[in-house]
Amino acid sequence: MEQRVSLITLGVADIGRARRFYERLGWRGHEAEETVFIQAGPVAVVLWGRAKLAEDAGFHDEGTDGFGGMAIAHNVRSREEVDRVLAEAVEAGAELSQPARETFYGGYAGYFRDPDGHVWEIAHNPAFTLAADGSLVLPEF
Amino acid sequence: MEQRVSLITLGVADIGRARRFYERLGWRGHEAEETVFIQAGPVAVVLWGRAKLAEDAGFHDEGTDGFGGMAIAHNVRSREEVDRVLAEAVEAGAELSQPARETFYGGYAGYFRDPDGHVWEIAHNPAFTLAADGSLVLPEF
Repeated sequence: MEQRVSLITLGVADIGRARRFYERLGWRGHEAEETVFIQAGPVAVVLWGRAKLAEDAGFHDEGTDGFGGMAIAHNVRSREEVDRVLAEAVEAGAELSQPARETFYGGYAGYFRDPDGHVWEIAHNPAFTLAADGSLVLPEF
Repeated sequence: MEQRVSLITLGVADIGRARRFYERLGWRGHEAEETVFIQAGPVAVVLWGRAKLAEDAGFHDEGTDGFGGMAIAHNVRSREEVDRVLAEAVEAGAELSQPARETFYGGYAGYFRDPDGHVWEIAHNPAFTLAADGSLVLPEF
């Protein structure tokens, strides 16, 4: 299995509501077959009905509204950008689950959950390199 | 908010078990501060204690073992590669939740869940371009 990721599919209750949320954040996608495809740098974020995703993946969906055990991080280039993106997300309808604060690794980060409960971290980590195209490069450690 | 993703953090019950699973799939990462960082193409996959992730993100973790409403897709270049990667995952300890089959969009895909319940789709979608470096490029629609 090659060491890479292609798409992140977010199961959503209402595809229109989910799309509007990400559009308010400035993201643009294309809808086909009741699915929204968003090119997010070198991967894609997909919005798809949660029940359809569960069925497709072979799961019984108990529809929990709790913490799903996974978070997507969007790293930015400064602390000010962390504050700005978190404010944009709240303005767009997100719930701020963790206000931005200093982190143990010398960074600055906060979290929001989107209208379907998917968890995003907005972080500035000075140890990680963000390439001009937005690709994340881990340090050599 | 720029249209990109930096990291995907998977909350895990046992960092050693989770690391061994991904290493059996051929992935290599670096452990620091009880966290495993894996460069996965232009993003990173991070393995971190689920309780720590929940606390960091500001959630009460009910520790559900069910479907989390999100799936990560790993797209490959042929149907044979779908079968091969799914077999590797099962050999490494994954549960095959959906055996590979024809999809409505003319592709071929199956799903597994990792030892912590995180859902991966292994897919061949002839409409999506995989660049030489593994980046996914959506069609023009």
